[in-house]
Amino acid sequence: MSLHPSVAAVRRPVRATLEQLEPGETVIVACSGGADSLALASAAVFEGHKLGLQIIGVTVDHGMQAGSADQAAKVVEQLAEIGVDETVTATVEVRADGDGPEAAARQARYAVLDQLAERLGASTILLGHTRDDQAETVLLGLTRGSGARSLSGMRSAFDRYRRPLLATTRTDTETACQVQGLEVWHDPHNRDFAYTRARIRHRVLPTLEDHLGPGVTDALARTAEQLRDDADFIDDIAEAAHRDLGETLAVATLARYPAAVRTRVLRIAALEAGSPPAELTREHVKAVDTLVTGWRGQRWIDLPGHLLARRTDGVIVFERKQSGESGPFTGNL
Amino acid sequence: MSLHPSVAAVRRPVRATLEQLEPGETVIVACSGGADSLALASAAVFEGHKLGLQIIGVTVDHGMQAGSADQAAKVVEQLAEIGVDETVTATVEVRADGDGPEAAARQARYAVLDQLAERLGASTILLGHTRDDQAETVLLGLTRGSGARSLSGMRSAFDRYRRPLLATTRTDTETACQVQGLEVWHDPHNRDFAYTRARIRHRVLPTLEDHLGPGVTDALARTAEQLRDDADFIDDIAEAAHRDLGETLAVATLARYPAAVRTRVLRIAALEAGSPPAELTREHVKAVDTLVTGWRGQRWIDLPGHLLARRTDGVIVFERKQSGESGPFTGNL
Repeated sequence: MSLHPSVAAVRRPVRATLEQLEPGETVIVACSGGADSLALASAAVFEGHKLGLQIIGVTVDHGMQAGSADQAAKVVEQLAEIGVDETVTATVEVRADGDGPEAAARQARYAVLDQLAERLGASTILLGHTRDDQAETVLLGLTRGSGARSLSGMRSAFDRYRRPLLATTRTDTETACQVQGLEVWHDPHNRDFAYTRARIRHRVLPTLEDHLGPGVTDALARTAEQLRDDADFIDDIAEAAHRDLGETLAVATLARYPAAVRTRVLRIAALEAGSPPAELTREHVKAVDTLVTGWRGQRWIDLPGHLLARRTDGVIVFERKQSGESGPFTGNL
Repeated sequence: MSLHPSVAAVRRPVRATLEQLEPGETVIVACSGGADSLALASAAVFEGHKLGLQIIGVTVDHGMQAGSADQAAKVVEQLAEIGVDETVTATVEVRADGDGPEAAARQARYAVLDQLAERLGASTILLGHTRDDQAETVLLGLTRGSGARSLSGMRSAFDRYRRPLLATTRTDTETACQVQGLEVWHDPHNRDFAYTRARIRHRVLPTLEDHLGPGVTDALARTAEQLRDDADFIDDIAEAAHRDLGETLAVATLARYPAAVRTRVLRIAALEAGSPPAELTREHVKAVDTLVTGWRGQRWIDLPGHLLARRTDGVIVFERKQSGESGPFTGNL
């Protein structure tokens, strides 16, 4: 019996990831019961066992939907049928904070996966994100308009996490489940248009594909990869430049850096001075930058976090705002 | 009578641009008769005359639509009413080539504007592109998926060209025309969905705004600006690295560069060897990159333009393909 192309499309990158490990190592597969992570779990068992790896299937119950415990129990059953060596159900409590329920759930999920990896001695945690998730993440980043980093999507590898399916299509994971007889769970959140990601998946991306061609998902994923390389490179340079400058942000030195580096150095300095990252926009940083490149005796620039930036004796300084200094931006916006 | 905010929103950046010039200089305003360029022409006359500048209004007849000569004549009349010092109608012949009619028209337009600037002694050519055009350009670039450069939109300044309205909304230019009694021409091409830009303007961007919020156009324009800084910076570094390497692309040296620089150096080298820019994709360049970072004795990588890349004695070389060496990619894709 020949291997179905979609099953092969899932197994191939999983094998490439697992081949990096030594026999006897333990691998966690995070599985929600959706097509992506079920296909991933199945491929991890198939390829992992050939390589002498221990595969542990973990499902996380976020307790955010009615019946979530039942769903977790069902996934554990499926994972056992697939043939994982061990199954774990982790229950987490998601505390909604300023970043919204999606971000809070994600944070709780990673925390519990990290704990489990420590406890179970797992060297690697596999995540099932696909090329389609990557394209959606780029579009999410686009709405924030905060540069290369926010457009660069998800990493294929960080710490002990690996995303082997980041170049595999969601359709391939769905087909792989179907031909392997795996019953897929459809997360109602993915259809709840209160969530930005659901709107991107079911409204925005289909519109883009209709009007710009079916290659747009692929183009978005490719874009992410390139911008990540770029962002890694420039962020490293900016951090080194910031360290070299030390405590004194000398205008003469700053002015020698190209804009891409200079604005990043100023952003790092403003964050260190206590400006909240979520509120410090590019417009703020550019206003501070005019103290370097467009100096005409501005008094100060107001920044979030009750801070202000001024230029004094050829140096940019960040200070707590005194009462009476709460005018509008004085920078050129 | 107080100044309408939309008129002010157009005049302010035009003034900032024209203030860089010396009295007596000559400025060309390119005008199609659309809201953007009519508002621009009007602001250029108002601000330019205060600064002692000569303002010449130019309209280009591309001869691509029935009645285009009549439209050009109408624009010339409007420009004269607005109060430009001189009007010119330039007729160009657009030869459609591989890049499509839009690209061919643009090329012909810039060529004739450059010629006119030389002949009329104009130091500056103003173009009416708005923030909305910028957002559309970013989305166009997104569909190509070719990294920071293709996402970085239009420059606010290059050679003698200036785009003062790149941070002004199209709505402001439309309102400015309306309150100043300027009758706006609606280019039928902007409604012709055979053109990708028309689909982006009337279908894609409205969908993005509906589902992701009205700030998305602004976010796209901001993204463009940041990615342009980044692309300028890394491209400069890659060009310097390529010069430093000279004729010999030594693997040991290439491997020391971060991915963002290394892939750009390899792309420059492949282009210099004769690979056609429009056909040389990121996938090709990444395949060549595996000769540096993923060496396992690959025989060669096929490249567009009947080229191949190989690694020989620790050096990457590009060669004309010999007959019999036309296998598929041997790189890891």
